[in-house]
Amino acid sequence: MRSVCVVGLGLIGGSVLRAAAAAGRVAWGATASDKDAEAARQDGYDVVGLAEALERAHEQDALVVVAVPMPAVEEVLRALPEGVRLTDVVSVKGPVADLVERVAPHARYVGGHPMAGTAASGWTAGSGTLFEDAAWVVTAEDEADLDVLTDVVELALAAKAHVVPTTAAEHDAAVARISHLPHLLAAVLASVGADGGPLALSLAAGSFGDGTRVAGSRPELVRAMCEGNRSALLDAVDDALGRLGAARGSLASTGGLAKTIEAGHTARLALQNQPPLTDLTIDLTAPDAHAALRRLGSRGGRIVGLNGTTARARTP
Amino acid sequence: MRSVCVVGLGLIGGSVLRAAAAAGRVAWGATASDKDAEAARQDGYDVVGLAEALERAHEQDALVVVAVPMPAVEEVLRALPEGVRLTDVVSVKGPVADLVERVAPHARYVGGHPMAGTAASGWTAGSGTLFEDAAWVVTAEDEADLDVLTDVVELALAAKAHVVPTTAAEHDAAVARISHLPHLLAAVLASVGADGGPLALSLAAGSFGDGTRVAGSRPELVRAMCEGNRSALLDAVDDALGRLGAARGSLASTGGLAKTIEAGHTARLALQNQPPLTDLTIDLTAPDAHAALRRLGSRGGRIVGLNGTTARARTP
Repeated sequence: MRSVCVVGLGLIGGSVLRAAAAAGRVAWGATASDKDAEAARQDGYDVVGLAEALERAHEQDALVVVAVPMPAVEEVLRALPEGVRLTDVVSVKGPVADLVERVAPHARYVGGHPMAGTAASGWTAGSGTLFEDAAWVVTAEDEADLDVLTDVVELALAAKAHVVPTTAAEHDAAVARISHLPHLLAAVLASVGADGGPLALSLAAGSFGDGTRVAGSRPELVRAMCEGNRSALLDAVDDALGRLGAARGSLASTGGLAKTIEAGHTARLALQNQPPLTDLTIDLTAPDAHAALRRLGSRGGRIVGLNGTTARARTP
Repeated sequence: MRSVCVVGLGLIGGSVLRAAAAAGRVAWGATASDKDAEAARQDGYDVVGLAEALERAHEQDALVVVAVPMPAVEEVLRALPEGVRLTDVVSVKGPVADLVERVAPHARYVGGHPMAGTAASGWTAGSGTLFEDAAWVVTAEDEADLDVLTDVVELALAAKAHVVPTTAAEHDAAVARISHLPHLLAAVLASVGADGGPLALSLAAGSFGDGTRVAGSRPELVRAMCEGNRSALLDAVDDALGRLGAARGSLASTGGLAKTIEAGHTARLALQNQPPLTDLTIDLTAPDAHAALRRLGSRGGRIVGLNGTTARARTP
C-alpha cells in the first residue's frame, strides 16, 4: 500500500488523511493553518512542516494529495520534489491541470475530485467516512500516468468512494451543470422570493425551501467554487437562460408551459430512475486503458474495486 | 358551527370534507368523479349529487367550498343558489374572483387557498390532517363579506391551519415567487443537468437533487398551477431572468458572482430565521377590519384563533 502525503488539512484534506490512516496506509500531512495542525496532532495524526512532508514523500515515493484552496495551489506546486506522484481534490480540474503543466510539468499528475460536502470547513469538520458512497472523479487524459492513476483509484476505494473516470474538461462541464448552476439558481430564487416581502416568505413551503436550500451555504465557499469554474459555468448559465427565456416567451404568447415542464419532468425521472448497472473489468495496463476509462465515465459508469491492475467496474 | 358543503372530492376537497367532519361539522360533498364519490362513501362520508348538495346548502345556509380544478369552476358557479356563502381552494385567486364576479355576482364570496401538497391526487390521497400547520390564505378585499370571511377562518382553524389574510392580487404575486417559479426553475435545472449526459447525472448530489425535486411532480398539475397564474408568474420569471442575466454578465466580465451569491444567502437566512412573533387581536366587526387583516398578512402575520368575532393573531 502506497504512503500518502496530504497537503492542506481542512474539511476535505483532513478527511482524506483520516480515511487513508483508517485504511492502514502510512499517512502524514502538512498545513499552513496552525489551528488545523494543532487539532490534527491532538487527534493523533502525523503533521509536519510542508518541506519535511514533501521530502518524506520523495523518499518513500508517496502519493502527494494537494488539498488546499485554489489560490494556494500554485505555492504548493512550486515546492514539489522532481517527478513526484501527484493528485489533488480541488473542485475544478481544468485550471489545476493548466497550473501543473505550467509550474510543475515534471510531476506525475492525475487530477481528482471527491464529490463530498462543502457546507462546513476546517479539520474539525472532517471525518474518515466523508467519502463513503460518494463519487470520486479521476481525470484519465491520454497523458495520465496509469501507475499514479491506479494509486488514486486505490486511495478513493480505500475511502469507500467509487471512482468516476473522465477528462478535466468533461468534469468541469458536468459539475457546472449539477453543482455550480444549482447554487446560482438557488441564490436567484431566494432573492426573487425575498423581493415578495414578508407575505411571500410566510407562504413559502416545500418547493421554495428545497429550491433555495444551498443558498444557505457559506457564500465565500460558493463563490470560490462557481467563480473557479467560470468558463464551463457560463455555458451552463446560457443553457438555463435560453430555457427560461423560451418558457417566458411561451407563457407570454400562448400561455403554455408544456414543453418546459414536461422536459424537466422527464429529466428528473432520468435522475431518479437510473438504469440498472452491469459488471465490467478494465485492464489498467492495456494500451487503450485511458480511452476505456473515459468511456466508462461518459456512460455513467464507475470503478468499484481493484484486483491488482484490473479495475472492477459497474456501468449502465 | 356552520355546515359545510364541499364540491369536488380530490386531494384538497376530500381533505377539507374529512377535516370538517373530524371537527364536528355537519358536512357533505359532491363530485363529478364516480371513483372519488364511491371511495368517499365507502369511508363513511355523505356524498350526494351536485344539485342536491347545493339545495341542501341553501336550506342550511351552509358554506360552499369549491374544490374543483380551475377549468371546472365555472360550471359549479353557474349552479349555485342565490346569495350562497362561498369560498374555494383553487391555487390562484385573481382569476377565480373574476369568474365569480362574472358568473355568480350574487354569491357572498371570500377566496381561500390552503397551501398544501399537490404531488398526489384523488380522494384516496387526501387526509383530515393535510392542513395541520399549513398556511390557509383568505382574501380580504374591501368588498369581502366579513360574516363569510369568519366562516372561512373557522373552517381553516378547524382544519388546524393558520390563516393568512391578503388580497387576490398579492396572493397571486406571492405564490408566483415562492411556488410557481420554483417549479419552473426546477424544470429548467433538471433539463440543463440532463443535457450534461450520463456523466453529469452520475455526479449529481445534494444541490442538484434539492434543486430539481419538484420537477418530479405530475407535469399536468404543475402546468395547470403555473399557467393559471400567468400574469403574476411572468413578473416573477422576469425578475429571475434579470437576476440570472446580471450574474451571467458579471461572471463573463469581471469573473465575480459576489452580488448574486451574497444577496441569495441573505435572502435564504431571512427565510430560515423568521423574526419572533407577538400577539395581536383584530375585531372582525370593526369598520376597518378588512384593512387590518390585509396589514397583518402583508407583514407576514397570521390568524391562529377566534374568540367569537375577535381574531387572535401572531405578527412579526
